[in-house]
Amino acid sequence: MNHYEELGFAKVDHHRIKRKGFPEVIYCPGKTTKQIVEIAKSINKKKHPVLMTRASVEVYKAVKKALRKATYHKEAKIITISKTIPYTPNPKPCLIITAGTADIPVAEEAAVTAEFLGIKTERLYDVGVAGIHRLTQNLDKLEKAKVIIVVAGMEGALPSVVGGLVEAPVIAVPTSVGYGANFKGLSALLTMMNSCAPGVAVVNIDNGFGAAVMAHAIIR
Amino acid sequence: MNHYEELGFAKVDHHRIKRKGFPEVIYCPGKTTKQIVEIAKSINKKKHPVLMTRASVEVYKAVKKALRKATYHKEAKIITISKTIPYTPNPKPCLIITAGTADIPVAEEAAVTAEFLGIKTERLYDVGVAGIHRLTQNLDKLEKAKVIIVVAGMEGALPSVVGGLVEAPVIAVPTSVGYGANFKGLSALLTMMNSCAPGVAVVNIDNGFGAAVMAHAIIR
Amino acid sequence: MNHYEELGFAKVDHHRIKRKGFPEVIYCPGKTTKQIVEIAKSINKKKHPVLMTRASVEVYKAVKKALRKATYHKEAKIITISKTIPYTPNPKPCLIITAGTADIPVAEEAAVTAEFLGIKTERLYDVGVAGIHRLTQNLDKLEKAKVIIVVAGMEGALPSVVGGLVEAPVIAVPTSVGYGANFKGLSALLTMMNSCAPGVAVVNIDNGFGAAVMAHAIIR
Amino acid sequence: MNHYEELGFAKVDHHRIKRKGFPEVIYCPGKTTKQIVEIAKSINKKKHPVLMTRASVEVYKAVKKALRKATYHKEAKIITISKTIPYTPNPKPCLIITAGTADIPVAEEAAVTAEFLGIKTERLYDVGVAGIHRLTQNLDKLEKAKVIIVVAGMEGALPSVVGGLVEAPVIAVPTSVGYGANFKGLSALLTMMNSCAPGVAVVNIDNGFGAAVMAHAIIR
Amino acid sequence: MNHYEELGFAKVDHHRIKRKGFPEVIYCPGKTTKQIVEIAKSINKKKHPVLMTRASVEVYKAVKKALRKATYHKEAKIITISKTIPYTPNPKPCLIITAGTADIPVAEEAAVTAEFLGIKTERLYDVGVAGIHRLTQNLDKLEKAKVIIVVAGMEGALPSVVGGLVEAPVIAVPTSVGYGANFKGLSALLTMMNSCAPGVAVVNIDNGFGAAVMAHAIIR
Amino acid sequence: MNHYEELGFAKVDHHRIKRKGFPEVIYCPGKTTKQIVEIAKSINKKKHPVLMTRASVEVYKAVKKALRKATYHKEAKIITISKTIPYTPNPKPCLIITAGTADIPVAEEAAVTAEFLGIKTERLYDVGVAGIHRLTQNLDKLEKAKVIIVVAGMEGALPSVVGGLVEAPVIAVPTSVGYGANFKGLSALLTMMNSCAPGVAVVNIDNGFGAAVMAHAIIR
Amino acid sequence: MNHYEELGFAKVDHHRIKRKGFPEVIYCPGKTTKQIVEIAKSINKKKHPVLMTRASVEVYKAVKKALRKATYHKEAKIITISKTIPYTPNPKPCLIITAGTADIPVAEEAAVTAEFLGIKTERLYDVGVAGIHRLTQNLDKLEKAKVIIVVAGMEGALPSVVGGLVEAPVIAVPTSVGYGANFKGLSALLTMMNSCAPGVAVVNIDNGFGAAVMAHAIIR
Amino acid sequence: MNHYEELGFAKVDHHRIKRKGFPEVIYCPGKTTKQIVEIAKSINKKKHPVLMTRASVEVYKAVKKALRKATYHKEAKIITISKTIPYTPNPKPCLIITAGTADIPVAEEAAVTAEFLGIKTERLYDVGVAGIHRLTQNLDKLEKAKVIIVVAGMEGALPSVVGGLVEAPVIAVPTSVGYGANFKGLSALLTMMNSCAPGVAVVNIDNGFGAAVMAHAIIR
Repeated sequence: MNHYEELGFAKVDHHRIKRKGFPEVIYCPGKTTKQIVEIAKSINKKKHPVLMTRASVEVYKAVKKALRKATYHKEAKIITISKTIPYTPNPKPCLIITAGTADIPVAEEAAVTAEFLGIKTERLYDVGVAGIHRLTQNLDKLEKAKVIIVVAGMEGALPSVVGGLVEAPVIAVPTSVGYGANFKGLSALLTMMNSCAPGVAVVNIDNGFGAAVMAHAIIR
Repeated sequence: MNHYEELGFAKVDHHRIKRKGFPEVIYCPGKTTKQIVEIAKSINKKKHPVLMTRASVEVYKAVKKALRKATYHKEAKIITISKTIPYTPNPKPCLIITAGTADIPVAEEAAVTAEFLGIKTERLYDVGVAGIHRLTQNLDKLEKAKVIIVVAGMEGALPSVVGGLVEAPVIAVPTSVGYGANFKGLSALLTMMNSCAPGVAVVNIDNGFGAAVMAHAIIR
Repeated sequence: MNHYEELGFAKVDHHRIKRKGFPEVIYCPGKTTKQIVEIAKSINKKKHPVLMTRASVEVYKAVKKALRKATYHKEAKIITISKTIPYTPNPKPCLIITAGTADIPVAEEAAVTAEFLGIKTERLYDVGVAGIHRLTQNLDKLEKAKVIIVVAGMEGALPSVVGGLVEAPVIAVPTSVGYGANFKGLSALLTMMNSCAPGVAVVNIDNGFGAAVMAHAIIR
Repeated sequence: MNHYEELGFAKVDHHRIKRKGFPEVIYCPGKTTKQIVEIAKSINKKKHPVLMTRASVEVYKAVKKALRKATYHKEAKIITISKTIPYTPNPKPCLIITAGTADIPVAEEAAVTAEFLGIKTERLYDVGVAGIHRLTQNLDKLEKAKVIIVVAGMEGALPSVVGGLVEAPVIAVPTSVGYGANFKGLSALLTMMNSCAPGVAVVNIDNGFGAAVMAHAIIR
Repeated sequence: MNHYEELGFAKVDHHRIKRKGFPEVIYCPGKTTKQIVEIAKSINKKKHPVLMTRASVEVYKAVKKALRKATYHKEAKIITISKTIPYTPNPKPCLIITAGTADIPVAEEAAVTAEFLGIKTERLYDVGVAGIHRLTQNLDKLEKAKVIIVVAGMEGALPSVVGGLVEAPVIAVPTSVGYGANFKGLSALLTMMNSCAPGVAVVNIDNGFGAAVMAHAIIR
Repeated sequence: MNHYEELGFAKVDHHRIKRKGFPEVIYCPGKTTKQIVEIAKSINKKKHPVLMTRASVEVYKAVKKALRKATYHKEAKIITISKTIPYTPNPKPCLIITAGTADIPVAEEAAVTAEFLGIKTERLYDVGVAGIHRLTQNLDKLEKAKVIIVVAGMEGALPSVVGGLVEAPVIAVPTSVGYGANFKGLSALLTMMNSCAPGVAVVNIDNGFGAAVMAHAIIR
Repeated sequence: MNHYEELGFAKVDHHRIKRKGFPEVIYCPGKTTKQIVEIAKSINKKKHPVLMTRASVEVYKAVKKALRKATYHKEAKIITISKTIPYTPNPKPCLIITAGTADIPVAEEAAVTAEFLGIKTERLYDVGVAGIHRLTQNLDKLEKAKVIIVVAGMEGALPSVVGGLVEAPVIAVPTSVGYGANFKGLSALLTMMNSCAPGVAVVNIDNGFGAAVMAHAIIR
Repeated sequence: MNHYEELGFAKVDHHRIKRKGFPEVIYCPGKTTKQIVEIAKSINKKKHPVLMTRASVEVYKAVKKALRKATYHKEAKIITISKTIPYTPNPKPCLIITAGTADIPVAEEAAVTAEFLGIKTERLYDVGVAGIHRLTQNLDKLEKAKVIIVVAGMEGALPSVVGGLVEAPVIAVPTSVGYGANFKGLSALLTMMNSCAPGVAVVNIDNGFGAAVMAHAIIR
């Protein structure tokens, strides 16, 4: 018995929902629009909810044509179809923080993914260390969170500060926001890897999706 | 009212146990033996348990002279004093996995720290991808874990494989084990950052301590 | 006596087929369309088969106008003319594996090149470690291969897993598929260089062509 | 007329005190002990005060033998002779901050140099972001400083936080304190270069001396 | 009482003018035009002067429509509105130097920012080390400056030479001008970090704005 | 049924000889001498031949005490016990080439490993491109080889030249021989990855062992 | 007396022809077309010959309108005006070699510059190490050259081979030709820096101009 | 007929003196003392002069025992035997410059090698850009040189300044002198590669030997 559907260009892993608690997710870049639509149809056919990340408007239009229930989350660049993952009761929410305004698209990728996975979320945007009172005046939100996703570019100092203030696990997401010696997110990544505040773990640059899945694994 | 003790060369953060659930931990490298002993005495005086990481035998001897209850965990290079952090009831343990034998010291840093923090642990060592049946024959251990710490050097592929198999959050620890294009752990770090299996987050190279604190934040 | 034809901008190495078993291959980037056509004509005139890699549709159209037998392999971005390299009898095929769907163009560069060189090939696409049962359910294909080309981006863990399972030589091809700390294929490259499973050797990022030539050298 | 003394292996720049406000300083590494002593004697002969950085105890002993007034600042690894640079009246001091205890030797290089250059200094050590109340409880010291030198290793987040709080110029000194993805200070350096808080400029890793000279140029 | 205005996508830090001596500045890249305009309106409403950096002509047009007093400084890519920061009396100007003509846009970002901050400026462009007499013939300008901002790409040697000649603090700005082993400004950055002439501190690649704020912090 | 022996610190993979054609090999660095001896005894007990790489003289002495048949190959830093892997009949040998004398230890690691694996070898040392006639005068050796392992440090140009001359597959081994911009073998590694001569694949820096296993996989 | 003409955005170094033997050269990128034309007119007015590198067709058209004698060398992307630098009698020419066809634009930048500087040149293109007989059959050209400029991308092995064969100084020019682990010319640069054949020195990636000026300095 | 002597571990290239104008040179690191002595004896037997670089005192003692005419140049770490290379008449000397005192060992490697090759040399040490009058007061020496070797660590700015002043070819030698963001010479290397002053070419970090051979190739 096969646990995947063979499409030639893809082996759709229908068994994943049993192992991981959620179905295979479609990362769009590098796939043709036709391939994306075929994989989405394969997942949808199994009555599994569908999540598609890094999707352009063009991809959305093609998916929408094939699968009418598709919804586009523009800022997050995510397409979802029939959000039916059973609700994970988490009275303490997953808090999603950004250092700046330009980090919001990555944060939205995390937030929309988390909500797709049935997690209660809260957003706290633009509280970077250049004006740290914006963070400390929201300390109550930090303290009542179950997990905190901190999204930051440039020097990426915010996860260390948050990690020093709270007991909840901090998932740090470096972003490619910045220029020059930022090296497309490398500076933020290294900062977060070297955090002097323990209780911080890091995902890939701009990987809001991965942070949300980690949060889901923690909360579920 | 100050929340720290001023030692001149250090401001011992006695407030941390309230914020983070555990007291300030002493990272030994770069401090003089005298400084280390003074900080340990300051924490011990407050009746807080003491954890000292990356401690050499020489440091241990000096600490032991000043604080008779000190215990040395040789493989982990950790000194603990009066382990009294209230037990976190976690019927599902924190599983600590290594890819190879040479990764064990880092895994032991994680395991001893986790136990200091009151977490139930289980060890599964030397199950790297070169002989993947060693991992799959222990799938039951993976499935019953609450959190999994995966410690791997060289190409660091193990967290991706584990992340593909289980629902539990995976904390990946790259190690500096390897040579050549390993660049002292960089290859394993990059591998883990780019994991195609979601639900994986990464801490610094050789940072067993940080992985254990992240596990504690998840479990508590 | 010269072993090459002098075109001014190129010295076409007509002797290569004697030394290497196949004629000079045209790597298109950086050459003008006019130069590409001239070199193709020079090789074709000698009745040698022609292989042109990384060819755009525009280049193909120009070549087709000059040499009517030209065929375009779109996904592989390869042009071939009069495939006449004597067949290398290899009852055990060269198996070409990808970790994901986005790695297929590189795999196709390898497959079309291998077939041009007279090698029997088999394809096994989208069997990455995030759902490792897709690989293990195809173990028979791995075991009957003479050589295995493994194409993978992101963390590039697949060659290590394959290398741990089989006796055949594994040629690992890192791809630039991924983002962030992938650094355009560097992470996959380093992973593969540090493989803990021996019997793995690596070619350049996205170099499907080179992998196929290595496979040809092994099989011939 | 020459503005330097020719020693063969060195051209001692006796004109520097006129251009820069302080005499040539001897950076010891890479010079033989004999060369160091000769240069020190050349400067001393001119009645200029002498500053020697990164000096080992062995170098100090040799200098002391030749120039009896030499003083060794052990933690800073600096030798000074006859501190006579005219006092720069700065009622608002240069404040020197460290993130941790292990950063103190670099901070001391800065402090001893600043004092040699006639600057009033104040020290505030071990106020890193993992326990940020240690910093905010000393806000008065930050606010009354003319210049602030912030010395930090690991993720190097402290200068951004300080730069967000005060008007004074911040000179950031990354240190090589840390391990793994710290890459001997690179992570702290990149963090500081990308500070989102303006009013921060950076000197070389572990370069306490350079920070003090910059502070002197600002205050003088 | 909040010290910021909540816009959802931004928390505008109206308290910054008290802490830093100038209001929040809008770094445009990564923000939508709509977000930029909203933040500008929020600052303008408080009667604070507005500075917007890295602004395209398109952004300027949208801002101009909403806030009629907006002025565009084309070469600097800066928008300013109602320049009313109280004048900082600095009889000795801030001198802004470039090594080449291509470095001028970064220098203009520094100059326009400095002028916005109320600082007297002087410009000295195209005096790089390939024709060092262009610098030495302007020594008087260097000597009468209070602070010197040196903007240089390629090998970035100019700050070291300037730092060897004058007493004033030198703020070095590496630029991404160059090609090949310049690695988009990395070579100039490393050169400046390693300057053998003390009294030099460095800001991020192409960060003319940051250099001006540092100059402001020194002069104020 | 387990396919490995559990030693606590290691799971000795006794199944590997079936999958790969040779038993588990002990890479010594990072393991304690006691661990090394225990693993060696576990393999030896199964009557499998034992290969131990990167073994110091001290390790050898300890192994010799426990297992009297151990032999030390000093230049290769390899210990072998009871070489009984069935002979692979390869009338055309595996040729091992070095660019210089300093590359010989890595080449010997390859040669001793290959011989342990039952492969006929031939050596051709010190034929680097600075005196290319040393290579071309040995063209007959190149032409009669089944596989060629080329070991080179510094600029690592030799595999490209060899790859241009012969039909046999070339396994390139970069070495850490060199200094400065060699960056411990990185320059040779990059050179070999970018070889313009196809039919070349690369293993890790200094990885003579890996090259030999790849040769074995090709020849077997 | 000034040795330069002040244009505000540029200080045209009219003294350079005395110091260096040729006038200031205009590197076009990063300058506006208007600036380029003004500088060209300033040099032309002094009756000095003008050389403009990396010039696009658009720049050429604007220059041509202002200075009718301008000539465009398309492949080299160079504009020259009134080539009147006194002839350097070099009976032994400067030989310019490329490894491949795609390296020719860089070689042409070198050749056109050299000819502008009055040097006799000879070209030998597409003689890379993958077919080394193309080089060795032209040994006579190598032997009669006064200086050899070797232009190569990908692995950049050609300068080492040439340097091993001849007595003439070899100026190595790495190019950005290649892909993947070539890292835009870094691999070729490192190869050339580590050349085991002495008598080789290196200029920047794609810097044909710099190589020609070095050749001129040697020959003059 | 062979053009080399076969020693097993080395093929001594006795033909090199004909191709390059000087015999094979022994680079000592990575060779055993025994190998070094054997190669030296092989060259000496041919009555060719012997040059051995990077030789420790221990190596020198062993060589001296075997070949009584050996001379040790301590600062350069070079051993020479019977200096008999025919004199190259160069009335204009090769000038060797250092930026600092710590760069002298590399400069001496260049100077001793140049003298071994029969070139007239002149030394000008410690004229770095921090006190540029030390250079400009020696302009006469620069102007009368045929070739200039400039040795500099830290930021490596000196070759650009020298290259801007003179017509002679400049061979730039980056050194590993420095710390922190110097990255063992990388900063100086990149600086020199990006020199805005043309007529500069670069050799490997600390490669005084290579610079001297390049100078010899230019002068001969």
